[in-house]
Amino acid sequence: MAGDKVILAYSGGLDTSCILKWLLEQRYEVICVLADVGQQENFEAARQKALKIGAKEVIVADIKQNFVEQYIWPAIQMGLIYEERYLLGTSLARPCISVALIEAARRYDAKYLAHGATGKGNDQVRFELCAYALQPDLKIIAPWRDVEFCRRFQGRQDLIAYAHVHGIEVTAKPATPWSTDANMLHISYESGILEDPNTVAPSSLYELTLDPLTQAPQTARRVCIHFVHGLPTVVEDLGNSRNYTIASDMLKFLNDLGGSYGIGRIDIVENRYVGLKSRGVYETPGGTILYTAHQDLEVFALDREVLRTKQLLRDRMSDYVYNGFWFSPEALYVRRCIELSQQHVTGQVTVELAPGYCRAIARKAGVNAGALYNQQLVSMDEHGGYVPQDAGGFIAINAVRIREHVRAFGAYNTEQQQRK
Amino acid sequence: MAGDKVILAYSGGLDTSCILKWLLEQRYEVICVLADVGQQENFEAARQKALKIGAKEVIVADIKQNFVEQYIWPAIQMGLIYEERYLLGTSLARPCISVALIEAARRYDAKYLAHGATGKGNDQVRFELCAYALQPDLKIIAPWRDVEFCRRFQGRQDLIAYAHVHGIEVTAKPATPWSTDANMLHISYESGILEDPNTVAPSSLYELTLDPLTQAPQTARRVCIHFVHGLPTVVEDLGNSRNYTIASDMLKFLNDLGGSYGIGRIDIVENRYVGLKSRGVYETPGGTILYTAHQDLEVFALDREVLRTKQLLRDRMSDYVYNGFWFSPEALYVRRCIELSQQHVTGQVTVELAPGYCRAIARKAGVNAGALYNQQLVSMDEHGGYVPQDAGGFIAINAVRIREHVRAFGAYNTEQQQRK
Amino acid sequence: MAGDKVILAYSGGLDTSCILKWLLEQRYEVICVLADVGQQENFEAARQKALKIGAKEVIVADIKQNFVEQYIWPAIQMGLIYEERYLLGTSLARPCISVALIEAARRYDAKYLAHGATGKGNDQVRFELCAYALQPDLKIIAPWRDVEFCRRFQGRQDLIAYAHVHGIEVTAKPATPWSTDANMLHISYESGILEDPNTVAPSSLYELTLDPLTQAPQTARRVCIHFVHGLPTVVEDLGNSRNYTIASDMLKFLNDLGGSYGIGRIDIVENRYVGLKSRGVYETPGGTILYTAHQDLEVFALDREVLRTKQLLRDRMSDYVYNGFWFSPEALYVRRCIELSQQHVTGQVTVELAPGYCRAIARKAGVNAGALYNQQLVSMDEHGGYVPQDAGGFIAINAVRIREHVRAFGAYNTEQQQRK
Amino acid sequence: MAGDKVILAYSGGLDTSCILKWLLEQRYEVICVLADVGQQENFEAARQKALKIGAKEVIVADIKQNFVEQYIWPAIQMGLIYEERYLLGTSLARPCISVALIEAARRYDAKYLAHGATGKGNDQVRFELCAYALQPDLKIIAPWRDVEFCRRFQGRQDLIAYAHVHGIEVTAKPATPWSTDANMLHISYESGILEDPNTVAPSSLYELTLDPLTQAPQTARRVCIHFVHGLPTVVEDLGNSRNYTIASDMLKFLNDLGGSYGIGRIDIVENRYVGLKSRGVYETPGGTILYTAHQDLEVFALDREVLRTKQLLRDRMSDYVYNGFWFSPEALYVRRCIELSQQHVTGQVTVELAPGYCRAIARKAGVNAGALYNQQLVSMDEHGGYVPQDAGGFIAINAVRIREHVRAFGAYNTEQQQRK
Repeated sequence: MAGDKVILAYSGGLDTSCILKWLLEQRYEVICVLADVGQQENFEAARQKALKIGAKEVIVADIKQNFVEQYIWPAIQMGLIYEERYLLGTSLARPCISVALIEAARRYDAKYLAHGATGKGNDQVRFELCAYALQPDLKIIAPWRDVEFCRRFQGRQDLIAYAHVHGIEVTAKPATPWSTDANMLHISYESGILEDPNTVAPSSLYELTLDPLTQAPQTARRVCIHFVHGLPTVVEDLGNSRNYTIASDMLKFLNDLGGSYGIGRIDIVENRYVGLKSRGVYETPGGTILYTAHQDLEVFALDREVLRTKQLLRDRMSDYVYNGFWFSPEALYVRRCIELSQQHVTGQVTVELAPGYCRAIARKAGVNAGALYNQQLVSMDEHGGYVPQDAGGFIAINAVRIREHVRAFGAYNTEQQQRK
Repeated sequence: MAGDKVILAYSGGLDTSCILKWLLEQRYEVICVLADVGQQENFEAARQKALKIGAKEVIVADIKQNFVEQYIWPAIQMGLIYEERYLLGTSLARPCISVALIEAARRYDAKYLAHGATGKGNDQVRFELCAYALQPDLKIIAPWRDVEFCRRFQGRQDLIAYAHVHGIEVTAKPATPWSTDANMLHISYESGILEDPNTVAPSSLYELTLDPLTQAPQTARRVCIHFVHGLPTVVEDLGNSRNYTIASDMLKFLNDLGGSYGIGRIDIVENRYVGLKSRGVYETPGGTILYTAHQDLEVFALDREVLRTKQLLRDRMSDYVYNGFWFSPEALYVRRCIELSQQHVTGQVTVELAPGYCRAIARKAGVNAGALYNQQLVSMDEHGGYVPQDAGGFIAINAVRIREHVRAFGAYNTEQQQRK
Repeated sequence: MAGDKVILAYSGGLDTSCILKWLLEQRYEVICVLADVGQQENFEAARQKALKIGAKEVIVADIKQNFVEQYIWPAIQMGLIYEERYLLGTSLARPCISVALIEAARRYDAKYLAHGATGKGNDQVRFELCAYALQPDLKIIAPWRDVEFCRRFQGRQDLIAYAHVHGIEVTAKPATPWSTDANMLHISYESGILEDPNTVAPSSLYELTLDPLTQAPQTARRVCIHFVHGLPTVVEDLGNSRNYTIASDMLKFLNDLGGSYGIGRIDIVENRYVGLKSRGVYETPGGTILYTAHQDLEVFALDREVLRTKQLLRDRMSDYVYNGFWFSPEALYVRRCIELSQQHVTGQVTVELAPGYCRAIARKAGVNAGALYNQQLVSMDEHGGYVPQDAGGFIAINAVRIREHVRAFGAYNTEQQQRK
Repeated sequence: MAGDKVILAYSGGLDTSCILKWLLEQRYEVICVLADVGQQENFEAARQKALKIGAKEVIVADIKQNFVEQYIWPAIQMGLIYEERYLLGTSLARPCISVALIEAARRYDAKYLAHGATGKGNDQVRFELCAYALQPDLKIIAPWRDVEFCRRFQGRQDLIAYAHVHGIEVTAKPATPWSTDANMLHISYESGILEDPNTVAPSSLYELTLDPLTQAPQTARRVCIHFVHGLPTVVEDLGNSRNYTIASDMLKFLNDLGGSYGIGRIDIVENRYVGLKSRGVYETPGGTILYTAHQDLEVFALDREVLRTKQLLRDRMSDYVYNGFWFSPEALYVRRCIELSQQHVTGQVTVELAPGYCRAIARKAGVNAGALYNQQLVSMDEHGGYVPQDAGGFIAINAVRIREHVRAFGAYNTEQQQRK
């Protein structure tokens, strides 16, 4: 154990800095991995801080491109959303970061992986399931589940005291009364004053989005998002005729524009995988716009029954990703099934951005892509191959079961009583 | 046939006025039923118009209370939504209107029911399935599926000409280039220029909601909505400390307030039950606020796994209602199952209204109602009976399948290629 | 119309012979297609009969190989079963026959397709949906839905009288008091005396299977069925060391052997797509053995969660196939998803045949195919990498929701009352 | 700890006898609970054995009636089956036994609950989840997950040696090379030589059922099972005109008769909740007959779409029960939903028993119970209110999506290639 190498998922913050020191005290050799998934951070300063504490090596892994291409884009393509509202910003980052951690473990031949995730949260599950999947013999060190560590550090004050004793720099900036997690897709806020679900989050909390009422532009703005097989390929800024075609550029543009409009704020209570309910506030400006556009295109493009099955698979996949099962037999399988469904999700959607929200207002199929929407067929003024008389038979046959129920069990109750 | 009594679902508009006349020409005796589900209409004028055309009787059925209590409130309780966006305003009204039609048919001992729904739409299905369910021996007359009628009236111009010939008053107001359906819950717009899904709906179209950017108040407003067993019981206007406790009052207040904020506009393509895709624009101000509040409370109040099953049932029920199966064995059954799930959905949600959208910002359980949200348990600073060490075993056992997959079939691919 | 070409799905029986004559009376030019899907039939005699009646052309289409490879094998691979018992023998044959009919229509440039399926059954739906899918402009003639035809032929006696008048040969063999449909996969029996679901089917009814008690061998017999990606590749007759490796040979062998054991009889009431419940008796000897083996291998080979999703898709696909949607967007999609799931369903299952039933008794993974079953891991006597202590944490975390429910809403009721 | 009271789930066998002694060595005061769920056991001898070892108290809890009425009957009503084959005999007994254990814990004010379930199995989960649900403050002692215990007892030989040292009687009967669990509903066999899934279980293994080929009667026998709301109410022995109307009598009669016919044997690999695959052999004679009858009646009695939803809920409930969640929010909820579905499952089914299997051969609705099966409607010879012409429109409208798919994306592939 002593002298064994540990890969530490390091953030530069108080917790993982103290964990770094604590691991050194246990005589581990610690290699810190600082994953850059797009959060605002002085990575060089964090690197120096870790080295000063005693890390043998500090790797700053810029995995932004991977994150957007291998995790965010597929999530948009699949339409992932947890409990109908959360766009999975943190859940998606965890497997991406885990890959970087595992790669470091392999490079340094480390036997251990340490992280600073709490024992009540989802992130411990996500990191560790990914680790078990990718490097099954890696051993996990989760200090916040370690009895001795938890006894020693019972609150933030204990960490600060420890930091002072060991010369670990504590950020001057006063801590917010909540914790955050930020990346290219979103910022999340939880804990602290947010633990009371009936306390309204203060407006000062939001970092990624401006206040819709007081800070956002008071005119609408339109973007047109093109998809091929369900993946975004072009974002047209209809306001000034600029196009974005590289995934990270598209996301950045939509984050900036959406953020300036205050788009993508949610305040929810969610069900954690470990059985707790927790309250979270999230900002996902660009992701919200992309989700909105993709959702619209999908109903436009997919056969109704294919859509029904796809959404069922989507709901399962969203749970898998939230729960940490990105690398699992079921997620690999369901993901491939969902991808199959996107074959014809090719086209473009115009989304109108307004302060605080966005919505789809127009859509069309891709050039040379077939389209199930059939203006001639649906038109009130034309037949388009549809024979209205057929509908009578359609209805009558659909009524067979309904009528049989009456025959067998009596009339439907037309006065449904409300529940007492 | 000649002399037989027909109940006609009459709206006062051009189509059903011509149908009334046409039925009279076929020597039916026609009783018109004008269902008041909250649409803006001069019912007395419409009544006189029908009488003048030759209706034997015109019944103005005020079914607003029934509509809100027996249809809208249950829909809110069940969380019904079609294809993730449409709150089913028209779909819910149809069975309610059908009950009024059937009651008239029974009262007048009519053998026939006529309606002006088109042969390509959902409403024909909804009216007729309800009729088959409630009065299986009633015969349906659907002129827009009648070959002879369709040949005679090939477009709006033919109707207008027919109206002129027969002294049927044609409204002076120029027709909008789309058709609408209005009731207490929503207004829908479709057809005409909206048939091109890539044409943006003109801002002049919206009747129930003001323009968020130019007409709505530029300050936020909060309401607190209380639910008991998933049904709204009180709407508190936090702006001026007024409470609404009667269903129709609550809905009216939220419609007015939501409408003034431009809340609840959607522009979608949807899948009709008869197999077509159609484009619709909808305004559902109060319904959107109620849906938002109920959705928030439900995740807060329900056990995670109960919620998963409930949402599955909800998706089925939404399809049933959209497709016209309100009175069907499956809808009766699934509805009762969903109602069972709402036993603990008791509490209140604060919703913030802003121009163009609303969102939940705070929630709490009802007084004396138990609550699954457990602030002590989820707190980072307390254990609350949760033993963090258990999470390690939880994760390890969950990893068994994941690791076995690697053992059996090799490593997970960490570089997922995008689809070509 | 007169002189137009019709493709008639001809069986050689009384119904389609009369329909052939009736079509000729309507002045159609009729090309009969006799599809050989493995039923016992004197095809040449049937051909001569049709020519004698006046068919312009009679095609005997031997589609047995296609049926087994493109329909039966995929159904086994997908594990299709309707309402948990019916192996879809007729449902699978219909699209296969439809392809032959459509090919004939194309070859002869026929505008019409006629069939003898009744207006209350599933087969009309299956034939016509396939036709609409494959040749959308083909027009359907369904005499048993034709008002005039139905008035003329109100029962079997009318058909016999018509046949006598027109010199159509009526089979000497007295008709059974039920109707049958036979092919390589099964024989079905319905109608007539079977319409009373409480009347036991007479033992004389069964044609494909011997009576288990009085005619079957009274010793067990074992076969070992090998699958690759869920498809049967080898059937080993363990009784006499013979192997079958060609699809149709495997099926024939299993039909013969299973039939001699009286395996694969079911007597059910089922839900027809048109809304009726009907009673059917089916014999599917080989299919039952193949289904049994595949089911066993699948649970053995698939990850638990992949299996759960696959079975959900299987249930949908079974409904699609039963309802006639083999060629539909949803069936194409779901089928591809299910095929994806079969990647690792490679191995072999030993099935024991006994009079009246068969069951899986042993199974193993394919050589060089990975296997999720891990004898070392599951052994009571070894750890195999599994740490029993982890289970405590697993259980405790799973109990969080369960305990929270008690805290919030009180104790579970241990005395569940039975329903009144 | 020392002196604390422990409730031990005691079986009388070697494992729990040694655990009893071991707990006494840890200075616990041990109250043994021997649950009589219908297994063959000399309860008085087992009681004496435990007292001799040093148990402070031994309770023989006869919970057979509870087991059949509160667990088995509801399982039949719900149609529970795990992974399509396993009738959950052990899974259902665990919560019933747990209630007895908890009642003892309350009576004796014990703080601990100990059981002899292994660390790799499902039973530990079932016992403990029930305990957490019913008595959340009870502490669990699971010796087979205790590191020290497991080190001391590494195999059966260590237990035998320990027994000899401590004067614990070891049964003279040589142990079978597998382990069993028996109750009123079934006997299960696993472990030992059964761990190789390709080894055929020896015929000597089966205890509850005779060998179908060599020991069963070689004539068929019929029983008629009556259900009210999905629950068995009468079993008629059609062979000798005897009726059984008490739940435990019905089950016993069917177990005896079914056992004499060798009915209800399965040999499967199943997915354990802890992530392992294990092989099990089960005998469930009476349960198989009841399941068969209920399944048949349900399809006969339920509306098709109600059945679809019910089966989805059934699959979820089966997983809940197998996984140990009998007392959980989700199981309580889903169970109530399924019970709702059984309102019309009233009628009777004739089941034919033959050596090795049984099958439904006739069924009818209950007297005065409505019936969806409509012989007149389905008859080929009558219309019964069904208008065959309607089917044409029904099919045509159902074809709209299918045709649109062709229009948009080209023809369906009629030559599906097999997977490589």
